[in-house]
Amino acid sequence: MADAITTRADDYSQWYIDIVKAAKLADYSPVRGCMIIRPNGYALWENMQAALDGMFKATGHENAYFPVFIPQSFLAKEAQHVEGFAKECAVITHSRLMVDDEKGVVPDPASRLEENLIVRPTSETIIWDTYSKWIQSWRDLPILINQWANVVRWEMRTRLFLRTMEFLWQEGHTAHATEAEAVEETLKILDVYTTFAQDFMATPVIRGIKTASERFAGAVETYCIEALMQDGKALQAGTSHFLGQNFAKAFGCQFQNKDNALEYVWATSWGVSTRLIGALIMTHSDDQGLVLPPKLAPTQVVIVPIWRGDAKTEVLEAAERIERELRDAGIRVKLDARESQRPGWKFNEYEVQGVPIRLALGPRDIKNGTIELARRDTKTKEGVPQEGLADRISGLLGEIQQGLFDSALAYRTAQTTKVDSYDDFKAVLDDKGGFVLAHWDGTDETEARIKEETKATIRCIPMPDEAEALGSNEPGVDMLTGKPSAQRVVFARAY
Amino acid sequence: MADAITTRADDYSQWYIDIVKAAKLADYSPVRGCMIIRPNGYALWENMQAALDGMFKATGHENAYFPVFIPQSFLAKEAQHVEGFAKECAVITHSRLMVDDEKGVVPDPASRLEENLIVRPTSETIIWDTYSKWIQSWRDLPILINQWANVVRWEMRTRLFLRTMEFLWQEGHTAHATEAEAVEETLKILDVYTTFAQDFMATPVIRGIKTASERFAGAVETYCIEALMQDGKALQAGTSHFLGQNFAKAFGCQFQNKDNALEYVWATSWGVSTRLIGALIMTHSDDQGLVLPPKLAPTQVVIVPIWRGDAKTEVLEAAERIERELRDAGIRVKLDARESQRPGWKFNEYEVQGVPIRLALGPRDIKNGTIELARRDTKTKEGVPQEGLADRISGLLGEIQQGLFDSALAYRTAQTTKVDSYDDFKAVLDDKGGFVLAHWDGTDETEARIKEETKATIRCIPMPDEAEALGSNEPGVDMLTGKPSAQRVVFARAY
Repeated sequence: MADAITTRADDYSQWYIDIVKAAKLADYSPVRGCMIIRPNGYALWENMQAALDGMFKATGHENAYFPVFIPQSFLAKEAQHVEGFAKECAVITHSRLMVDDEKGVVPDPASRLEENLIVRPTSETIIWDTYSKWIQSWRDLPILINQWANVVRWEMRTRLFLRTMEFLWQEGHTAHATEAEAVEETLKILDVYTTFAQDFMATPVIRGIKTASERFAGAVETYCIEALMQDGKALQAGTSHFLGQNFAKAFGCQFQNKDNALEYVWATSWGVSTRLIGALIMTHSDDQGLVLPPKLAPTQVVIVPIWRGDAKTEVLEAAERIERELRDAGIRVKLDARESQRPGWKFNEYEVQGVPIRLALGPRDIKNGTIELARRDTKTKEGVPQEGLADRISGLLGEIQQGLFDSALAYRTAQTTKVDSYDDFKAVLDDKGGFVLAHWDGTDETEARIKEETKATIRCIPMPDEAEALGSNEPGVDMLTGKPSAQRVVFARAY
Repeated sequence: MADAITTRADDYSQWYIDIVKAAKLADYSPVRGCMIIRPNGYALWENMQAALDGMFKATGHENAYFPVFIPQSFLAKEAQHVEGFAKECAVITHSRLMVDDEKGVVPDPASRLEENLIVRPTSETIIWDTYSKWIQSWRDLPILINQWANVVRWEMRTRLFLRTMEFLWQEGHTAHATEAEAVEETLKILDVYTTFAQDFMATPVIRGIKTASERFAGAVETYCIEALMQDGKALQAGTSHFLGQNFAKAFGCQFQNKDNALEYVWATSWGVSTRLIGALIMTHSDDQGLVLPPKLAPTQVVIVPIWRGDAKTEVLEAAERIERELRDAGIRVKLDARESQRPGWKFNEYEVQGVPIRLALGPRDIKNGTIELARRDTKTKEGVPQEGLADRISGLLGEIQQGLFDSALAYRTAQTTKVDSYDDFKAVLDDKGGFVLAHWDGTDETEARIKEETKATIRCIPMPDEAEALGSNEPGVDMLTGKPSAQRVVFARAY
């Protein structure tokens, strides 16, 4: 039996960790704050990568790879970037170990580096140093590059997937001849992320703009998608930054425009990470384990054959035939015919692992031409005919995908509250949680005071169409200062 | 125009670097010894990854991800491993930078780590530490895990792709209940690597066993595939290690067998890296640029439309129609309709980049229903009918793939020489290069003396079937010591 999973009502944080462990998604490692992504978790990441990578390529992007090490001095070149990233990071000072009779192995003092290296926390600096060599003329633009890589941020309080010292991500870095083109790119990627979150992760998100205090260090404007978890806390699920000419200026990246004049290049950067696996877990899973949207589930259907004695051959043959039929229909199917585990153990295992559909097949089913079909999302089961099974399952997978999105959206809608007074604001945060739509006067001071007093932050200023959909686009007055506000913004306590 | 490429005859090393630069595969980075893999190079790596990953999964392996950092003490746990890997490596000693008014940013002395971390040079230690927690019983075995990752070895003399401080690779790490199973796995992967090299890279390889002095640090036996480059030097293209119980013992990894007795787990590890891109370049390319086998070429066919004045619409429409037809036939095709560059510039560009087939289409072709087809490998061109083009090209891509392998094999056969005396051995190495098949007495001393005197190393002891094919399986006497030898071994100067 798998270890028991704590219920959400008992201890939400422990429930989350229990799911990650029981579904074999990840483990802590001997290096504090680093995680081991186990095969079940990595297969999810591979499916996420495949979907995103396809969308990046369909919008004209190419993959490349830049070094994991950044010279220490690079981090100091962009004034705001240094504040944001030249703090907690992994610093390499030596290039050789030597054996010491007392201490085992130690760094060889003779190998002290002339300039320290930093393990990349993000790659703007090394990439813009390179772009300054690649770009001379308008003919060299745009550059639309993405990389899949590991990055390291020396986090003090870590949680598997959500906040780890090392994580995997993609980071896009594009270079453009005009401001308008760079802004268009930033918004195009925001749309890609939104489509991915909603259509693949079945996770509704609010698209918006970050306030100055929440902006990426070095960006002119940070756009984001914000999702709501089942405990009423928000999670930033992706960001797309319009960087203006900040990095081009810091790294001397100019191009000759069509009129032969020199201009600084316009930039964007954008990324999503293995954090999304945390978001996926906290959007759909329940007290029995993981629940996965079919489009990302590594295994969409598991077949468990059940037999005693003589029936083995005929049950297994039928199970294999059904496996082939489903595979030929493009369904990711797994037949678990292991004899070292009992059917009941398997039922539990695949429930914990969130496989969307479980099929069970015994001698009576063979006789009747039926099979037992159990849904992970609704926990319902029924006998269905073997005939037409692939079509039925293809349809059902689509239905489950849509059902998960609809449930998550209904939850978010119920947990999104408009408030007009600070007292109501605090009461909603404490009693109900979720997104709180309130007016804000646009100042850093008010934002900081609210954060300090309530631990809630402004998740985003919704994009115009989002604001309209949320009904948050009417003007009003700041709940604290009474100063005018053009539209409500989205507050929440967040991961 | 692209920069001129040095000829192989003039300066082989410079030719190699020129190809890498001119085909936009990679660049040096501001961090000494690290490389930037540009989109053309990375697309090649993606195709290599897709082919290998498919073969790994088809043989039952799963992907996972282990941390980039390894505690310094881990490297010292396996006696031989410490010798091999705890030397030149990136040592992390601090976790925070601070601003210093004089020096810019510096490591914060208060952030000195209690235990230094190493950027992984390979992951046996951290993985076997983990396996010791995952494995209790024979039911937990086998574990068949692969990871795609970056690794760092502090190399002094680097060359793009062939030897860089950071490189990308895959590393398989498997755990088994019996020695026989682990040896079987090691050999199965050697076969996967051989198939990949020969069928995808069109690169013939010799499969063999490394001598003790060339063995992976910590392995009981290292198997390898060895390829021959156009300058007569060998290149190790992949290794598969049988690790015995060495790492299981170092990390206390035992399992309860079916008889309830505790046993140490048996292990393998295996890897190939971005080095293979270097091998690919040096196997097939010529003085005009890169030559790529169609199965790995990111673009298999490029279409260059040619028009003046009025003809633009009809030429472009025909080009787009042909592009669709080829794409629908599963061919990776690119239409280059840019008006910012002339056709001649494009012809040169795609020749340098090694696109296997170039199609050119002008107004006269439209009238005649023809198209000009140029092959990169033979540099021949001919007019062919537009009708049936997709079938013709599919067939031709297969022919080119096979032709490249046949040429490389013919070269290797011509450059493989049997010698029986040390004088002949030295003469062949100096005058002709290539693989030299000679008898060796099996001692470290003789091997070391030959290496010191000639810079040639034993690339491998060929596997029995290879030895038979090479005609190297007859017994004889060592060319230096006259001591008996069971079979010839493969010597060469190597990358």
